[in-house]
Amino acid sequence: MRIAVDAMGGDNAPDAVIEGAVLAAREYQVEILLVGQQGVVRESLDQYDLGGGKIEIVPASQIVLMDESPTEAIRGKKESSIAVAARLLGTGDADAMISAGNTGAALATTRSFLGKLKGLARPAIASVIPNEVDFTILLDVGANAGGCRPEHLRQFAIMGEIYAREVMGKENPRVGLLSVGEEESKGSAVTLSAFPLLAQSPINFVGNVEGSDVVNGSTDVVVCDGFVGNVILKLTEGIGEMLFKLISEELGKSKLAKLGVLMAAPVLRKFKKRIDYAEYGGAPLLGIKGVCIIGHGKSSAFAIKNAIRVASEFVSHGVNEHIEQKLKIIKEQGI
Amino acid sequence: MRIAVDAMGGDNAPDAVIEGAVLAAREYQVEILLVGQQGVVRESLDQYDLGGGKIEIVPASQIVLMDESPTEAIRGKKESSIAVAARLLGTGDADAMISAGNTGAALATTRSFLGKLKGLARPAIASVIPNEVDFTILLDVGANAGGCRPEHLRQFAIMGEIYAREVMGKENPRVGLLSVGEEESKGSAVTLSAFPLLAQSPINFVGNVEGSDVVNGSTDVVVCDGFVGNVILKLTEGIGEMLFKLISEELGKSKLAKLGVLMAAPVLRKFKKRIDYAEYGGAPLLGIKGVCIIGHGKSSAFAIKNAIRVASEFVSHGVNEHIEQKLKIIKEQGI
Repeated sequence: MRIAVDAMGGDNAPDAVIEGAVLAAREYQVEILLVGQQGVVRESLDQYDLGGGKIEIVPASQIVLMDESPTEAIRGKKESSIAVAARLLGTGDADAMISAGNTGAALATTRSFLGKLKGLARPAIASVIPNEVDFTILLDVGANAGGCRPEHLRQFAIMGEIYAREVMGKENPRVGLLSVGEEESKGSAVTLSAFPLLAQSPINFVGNVEGSDVVNGSTDVVVCDGFVGNVILKLTEGIGEMLFKLISEELGKSKLAKLGVLMAAPVLRKFKKRIDYAEYGGAPLLGIKGVCIIGHGKSSAFAIKNAIRVASEFVSHGVNEHIEQKLKIIKEQGI
Repeated sequence: MRIAVDAMGGDNAPDAVIEGAVLAAREYQVEILLVGQQGVVRESLDQYDLGGGKIEIVPASQIVLMDESPTEAIRGKKESSIAVAARLLGTGDADAMISAGNTGAALATTRSFLGKLKGLARPAIASVIPNEVDFTILLDVGANAGGCRPEHLRQFAIMGEIYAREVMGKENPRVGLLSVGEEESKGSAVTLSAFPLLAQSPINFVGNVEGSDVVNGSTDVVVCDGFVGNVILKLTEGIGEMLFKLISEELGKSKLAKLGVLMAAPVLRKFKKRIDYAEYGGAPLLGIKGVCIIGHGKSSAFAIKNAIRVASEFVSHGVNEHIEQKLKIIKEQGI
């Protein structure tokens, strides 16, 4: 299996990305295509012992910046690392791609180069949110800026369910529809109409869920509009940063407390590991004809390595084939 | 000033509510009307030394349960403590009311008994969310289950700004519109149209804000649809509970860590106090012709006392008069 990695995307690119690629090439049965500015990538790559791993460099002269408009990136930077990686997917020279760069550009580029899965109305981005027990798959977290219709939410549910099962190893994932109350009668006009669609679908639909269900371990897949999902994603990250700053600040005021925390450190580290996004590797674009995993902008080498693992499982489990199949069943049965 | 307190509402009613009322009556220049089942309230009240505070009991034979449908509560329970308290407001026998009971019922009852402020389209519930620096006012958090139009969001902004200034003591509150990106061009169809309305309004509008801005201290008032706000509110509560459980669980595994946390306890307590909802007293219903503060269902006596303080400031600062005045200015100027 060949995986194209955007070597230029992310706050810690290219070094962290290349280190992550080396780690993955050593550990997994994958061939890595590092896409980026040849000189820079070569220089960084030469620092590592590949240990038998297979890595090739594919040149791409341009870089899409983190805050660049996706439309401009598509039009103006046809030789960007994201565009070249997407082309490798289009020609079959790669089976999957990873980028920790500009999410909007990755979405727009893959969507325009590769198209959508058969029967799918709107792609979605799924994010893995740590919860009390393990993690929850939340989607859409930003491929759509609102305006999702009930049928879109149903398709998100189907894609999320398959991803949770095939890639994240959940056996019979519980799928919930995010709303403002558990009763079927509570919700917005869109969720009220989406409810019966999800209830009729071939998934383990557990009904409406609330904000707290994203993190309390009651639900494996939470389905929502891209506006709400994006707010949730950024809020959970913001709360994590806030807690860290507030606790550090309070601790700065007391030596005894500092010593106390030092003693509790191994436990706190374990806790941090449990809620660390890097463990889960990245957010898949679901619904495009191809496999693309979006890494967090702050991805470490460890996060990139995990994103490569996730991409290879996405391919080997045939997630996209499963999605097209289920969409076909729903269409045929008229449900 | 006379404040009606729903003695029967909330998970810890009537005892915590009555204790909170006693604390407030002793400390603030307010007269409390405890509304509820006379025998029960009398028995609980007799445990306390009023210390010169003025408390009266107003009988109400029925109780609205926490999960009861608001419409049924209005129709079927005309003698509920919430209905009787709202009537006291309607007749002018009370200046404000507090309830830690069924939020939907309090909203529906006060709205139907007292009506909306002049010029206002939709009432909203504002919640106080702790942030890195102090707190953020978020609205709407659930008076509306979605379907808010741009003009509604603008009115929420105006109400939130006045509440932040007059009751929460923020001098020139920064008002942000919740969206999926900071750029004016990012957002849903509704937020894109709301942006220019907020920009033209007589408030300190800081533009679009993201989920992280709810907690990073960059914004004093965050405006959103009731669906999104409700999800945020329940999610932040859920994250608090999750962190507490996960940390306790990890600590249970290590004696050294336990000792460490014991040493850090005073700092952790201070931190907990900083993020404790009870400090902020409750969530105001904004936009009704009357003053109603909704306490958290789990309100302690301390939270009830603070809710009474908030209600008295709401009245004495003439929040509703300020809101009607600003809505009038906007209407007259055609902005």
